[in-house]
Amino acid sequence: MTDTTTRRRMLGWRARSGAGIDGLELREEPEPVPGPGEVLVAVRAVTLGYRELLVLRGEYVLPVKDDLVPVSDGAGEVVALGPGVRRARIGDRVTAGLFPYWLDGPFGRPEHFPQLGGSLDGWLAQKVVLPESALVPVPAHLSYAEAATLPCAAVTAWHALDGVRAGDTVLTLGTGGVSLFAAQLAKLLGARVLATTGDAAKAGRLRALGVDEVVLRGDGDWPERVRALTDGGRGVDRVVDVVGDLPRALRAVAMSGEVALVGFLGGEPPVLDPRALFGAGARVRPLAVGSRAQFEAMNRAIEAGGMRPVVDRVFGFEEAVAAFRHYAEERPFGKVVIAL
Amino acid sequence: MTDTTTRRRMLGWRARSGAGIDGLELREEPEPVPGPGEVLVAVRAVTLGYRELLVLRGEYVLPVKDDLVPVSDGAGEVVALGPGVRRARIGDRVTAGLFPYWLDGPFGRPEHFPQLGGSLDGWLAQKVVLPESALVPVPAHLSYAEAATLPCAAVTAWHALDGVRAGDTVLTLGTGGVSLFAAQLAKLLGARVLATTGDAAKAGRLRALGVDEVVLRGDGDWPERVRALTDGGRGVDRVVDVVGDLPRALRAVAMSGEVALVGFLGGEPPVLDPRALFGAGARVRPLAVGSRAQFEAMNRAIEAGGMRPVVDRVFGFEEAVAAFRHYAEERPFGKVVIAL
Amino acid sequence: MTDTTTRRRMLGWRARSGAGIDGLELREEPEPVPGPGEVLVAVRAVTLGYRELLVLRGEYVLPVKDDLVPVSDGAGEVVALGPGVRRARIGDRVTAGLFPYWLDGPFGRPEHFPQLGGSLDGWLAQKVVLPESALVPVPAHLSYAEAATLPCAAVTAWHALDGVRAGDTVLTLGTGGVSLFAAQLAKLLGARVLATTGDAAKAGRLRALGVDEVVLRGDGDWPERVRALTDGGRGVDRVVDVVGDLPRALRAVAMSGEVALVGFLGGEPPVLDPRALFGAGARVRPLAVGSRAQFEAMNRAIEAGGMRPVVDRVFGFEEAVAAFRHYAEERPFGKVVIAL
Amino acid sequence: MTDTTTRRRMLGWRARSGAGIDGLELREEPEPVPGPGEVLVAVRAVTLGYRELLVLRGEYVLPVKDDLVPVSDGAGEVVALGPGVRRARIGDRVTAGLFPYWLDGPFGRPEHFPQLGGSLDGWLAQKVVLPESALVPVPAHLSYAEAATLPCAAVTAWHALDGVRAGDTVLTLGTGGVSLFAAQLAKLLGARVLATTGDAAKAGRLRALGVDEVVLRGDGDWPERVRALTDGGRGVDRVVDVVGDLPRALRAVAMSGEVALVGFLGGEPPVLDPRALFGAGARVRPLAVGSRAQFEAMNRAIEAGGMRPVVDRVFGFEEAVAAFRHYAEERPFGKVVIAL
Repeated sequence: MTDTTTRRRMLGWRARSGAGIDGLELREEPEPVPGPGEVLVAVRAVTLGYRELLVLRGEYVLPVKDDLVPVSDGAGEVVALGPGVRRARIGDRVTAGLFPYWLDGPFGRPEHFPQLGGSLDGWLAQKVVLPESALVPVPAHLSYAEAATLPCAAVTAWHALDGVRAGDTVLTLGTGGVSLFAAQLAKLLGARVLATTGDAAKAGRLRALGVDEVVLRGDGDWPERVRALTDGGRGVDRVVDVVGDLPRALRAVAMSGEVALVGFLGGEPPVLDPRALFGAGARVRPLAVGSRAQFEAMNRAIEAGGMRPVVDRVFGFEEAVAAFRHYAEERPFGKVVIAL
Repeated sequence: MTDTTTRRRMLGWRARSGAGIDGLELREEPEPVPGPGEVLVAVRAVTLGYRELLVLRGEYVLPVKDDLVPVSDGAGEVVALGPGVRRARIGDRVTAGLFPYWLDGPFGRPEHFPQLGGSLDGWLAQKVVLPESALVPVPAHLSYAEAATLPCAAVTAWHALDGVRAGDTVLTLGTGGVSLFAAQLAKLLGARVLATTGDAAKAGRLRALGVDEVVLRGDGDWPERVRALTDGGRGVDRVVDVVGDLPRALRAVAMSGEVALVGFLGGEPPVLDPRALFGAGARVRPLAVGSRAQFEAMNRAIEAGGMRPVVDRVFGFEEAVAAFRHYAEERPFGKVVIAL
Repeated sequence: MTDTTTRRRMLGWRARSGAGIDGLELREEPEPVPGPGEVLVAVRAVTLGYRELLVLRGEYVLPVKDDLVPVSDGAGEVVALGPGVRRARIGDRVTAGLFPYWLDGPFGRPEHFPQLGGSLDGWLAQKVVLPESALVPVPAHLSYAEAATLPCAAVTAWHALDGVRAGDTVLTLGTGGVSLFAAQLAKLLGARVLATTGDAAKAGRLRALGVDEVVLRGDGDWPERVRALTDGGRGVDRVVDVVGDLPRALRAVAMSGEVALVGFLGGEPPVLDPRALFGAGARVRPLAVGSRAQFEAMNRAIEAGGMRPVVDRVFGFEEAVAAFRHYAEERPFGKVVIAL
Repeated sequence: MTDTTTRRRMLGWRARSGAGIDGLELREEPEPVPGPGEVLVAVRAVTLGYRELLVLRGEYVLPVKDDLVPVSDGAGEVVALGPGVRRARIGDRVTAGLFPYWLDGPFGRPEHFPQLGGSLDGWLAQKVVLPESALVPVPAHLSYAEAATLPCAAVTAWHALDGVRAGDTVLTLGTGGVSLFAAQLAKLLGARVLATTGDAAKAGRLRALGVDEVVLRGDGDWPERVRALTDGGRGVDRVVDVVGDLPRALRAVAMSGEVALVGFLGGEPPVLDPRALFGAGARVRPLAVGSRAQFEAMNRAIEAGGMRPVVDRVFGFEEAVAAFRHYAEERPFGKVVIAL
């Protein structure tokens, strides 16, 4: 049906699990062709996350395909429609969730498992094909670069804040992508936000994002100091835990509160004595990213609040390797973008 | 146990259902004495609402006692404790819900029914006795005058917004007490807020409160114009309906949205054809004020957001009659306060 | 791609909106061919509901296509797969929701609106094509005839019971399809069930389904008698209202309870004074059928409880006209099935 | 106000934390007198739980008063009212929650902390005084002995099942009090119930309670075998974990499911690697007993379903020491009751 001899050519990066940043390779190849229910998207921006490093290092826990177009987060413009497409039109500004087939409800059906930039090709190419069901419109006030920051970090933060109500106190840890989004989104939800950081120089930037109180991690026992900042020492209602240090998180959280466990940025986490969990009287909820419905709901909140993601630095498409190195080595404050 | 011959004297207003504003009477009488589980509160501020007019006019639907200390909304300082009090201390800055025995959960148990300034004496006196279980701490950043605005209007608005999520669109009608609080609280929750008003001069004041779009009621068919301001004409997610015009409210609301029905400020409401309700596909939820738990949750949100109630004008304690007349005749923008 | 000259032939009924039962016509025609993401289903059973009569009478409120394969409810076996199908396999026993594109979340997106046996062809044919996303597996313990009863009546009942908790009291009205399912499903949920009926002879059959108390409608004022059967006269927690008589339903429901409004079986409903709604203190929630996620959740409950739908009578495929007449004229107790 | 010289005498057991079963002592002492807002209850039945053994052994984690009237669970008849009592009448059949001041909402306010048979005197006496706010009516179809089984074990099980929906699969571990109630209550909620036991002789009794599948613990790797009994090996939706073996519980639970952590019956629990929790994708929620509102909601469900608690054996009041020994040594199937 498609005559590949006349197919347009494009550039795309390819990666191999375990080959590291040095294994990234830029190739010219035929443009992909959208099948039934699929669309072709001209990529405008891609952003990097910790997950991408794990994929390149061969340390990612989920399946990774060979000869992968890497990176799970991007945004672009719909430029062609496959047969039978109903939800998209040419010119739509779109992004998509990491799990493009997880549309709604809780995670767990086998159909939810394929992931962009992992078992499926991702966004780091001039053109990508996506199932129309995966598409999420870009909020009107955001640029493509800003929209490309959302799929992993922001949706994870939103999911981690599930059930937070106005007036609750939320604790974020450090200044990684999920934590910055968690702080911004928690403010949209009307929460009070406490944030830890190991770097005093970042305290001001956290406050500028709306954080109410910054706690320096190095400075004594941070869970105790967090707790001292809560009404009568009762603890915070929600911890967005990106490092998995549950013994500390449980010392900071209020009874009947929650630790949302989203990852292990600090490497191997300490083990947990279940009696400490019982004594804290707070639940621990692990989660990974979110459904399309959660992504859409978050976007409505971002639009209503006029929220803008924090962009650290923008690289060109051919500078992808430099962008990865910057992300891996420079501890950026905000997302690292590759713009096309 | 109490020697009334030596009891302190105080001033208090008394009202009779049906006697109108002219029936208000200022009396000197003995200070009340807190019984077991009760506290004595030195009243610092009282605020007026539509409900008070209904009580004075003899049009209130719930029971009203004879020789009533009127007004359901006030705030003050705890100055004496009855035997066995555990939740309060001398000096506490407190307010209380309209239904002082409705602590948590849905309304409906017979124990919930007694109401301040109705079947029970209210706040328009120098000292009042309250059950300690009714007390709600005043948010730290609010004055007594500001805190006294909360019990009916703000708690009703909060209850009406139950389930609203960041990114939802909320519609408020006019500039009465509940509607202004609904607009302010909806912004705290991260919602987009549309407001109608019949008075173009008030549009700017609504915008200053955070309202995103103001719709002038006189100007054509307002439900249609509200709908036109929602994404693709889908309608608003929540209407806070203070007039009970359900046919119009249902034309403005989105499918699967909700009309929160809080009263009939405009007098007799139009009847509803259930087929219009079915066609709209939105639920209608009547509600009255809220529980102590809702009041406390609202206060946490107000504190986290630094929200301040709108005060129209402050009268002295002996000017209560003038305050009532001002409230009844001047269509104030914000609450009318009597300060002590 | 498909050679229609060799396509298999099949029999299918066709209807026209407004032509009544007499307008039904049996035709031989080519078997439909599943496109991308679609499956071909060999129909094993079809069931009739009130909605079908409205379609035939031309009184249905939603769009109806010309030359319609009628009937929204059926069940069958997957016999062929279109390209790219992932969720289905040959031999699967399946049914589908009335709104085949409403997968999850609240109703209201334009993509939800197409409906089987209305704007889309329905089940009354030997073979039908369905989008794979619409398919819902048949519970293992149910026959095709039993499964075919579920899509409208049972899913509507399940949706109407949303939020009912064990120990709540549920009221059903009469012995139509939705009401019988509401009674059975409410028992699965651990509720106490009261049912009205106008026909004393049906009281025993209602009790056999698990109904705890039967109230004869003719016999005095039924809302008062329902209320007398609830703890201290507090009223029922949920009314599943299939007739739209809200004034009566609101007299039977408890404060903070709910009237789930699912239709107008009795014809034109009485108008409602919003003050009666406010006085009842219970919400009214209109709803129509449910999403695929609700259908699946209901099926899990039906399987766990071993529940079996009530079948009134089974007709052959070529007896469809007689089946419709029986349904329209005989007030069946249980669903009328056409088996293939 | 009370003349102790004429006060009636009664018998009551006294215990000391750390003194063991042998430290229990029966004393004659003056009947307690209800103060304002309190009632006097003639105890009719008391039941024993694991918590009582921890108290006697001095191993209980919460504060225990000196010279304690032990046992947190009982039921009786109101025989006298203190001043100002509104919620109770003479003759009421009542029980009460372990935390008599935890009325509603999540646990965590300091006012919730006092506990019967711990920091407060408990039920093992002929008469006890309780705050009226703590009272929970006994379901009409239950005897005092049956009602006395509910406060700890059943309420804990109910709380552990919070959010379970009809059709979910619930796993219980062993045949202790909480586990038997969890199995019975899960059936009331319409769930499918799997239960482990180490004792093949108990499988039949579990099935008689409604358990759908029994898994023998000794027999290979039980989490794997539990999982094999769930649809496609997806795991159970809820584990009611009374032993705190989270590594195993997380291998049995479905993604997006929950482990409700209610205790450590088996002694010291294994530590947990947070990566196992993350990999399982299920939350862990610790909980202890429940509020009065939860107790009341459970009782409504028990009444609607006609559920009866399992009683192992009934002892007389003066046989309390024998009852404790039986409970501690005989691994009863069902609750051990002391009847008065």
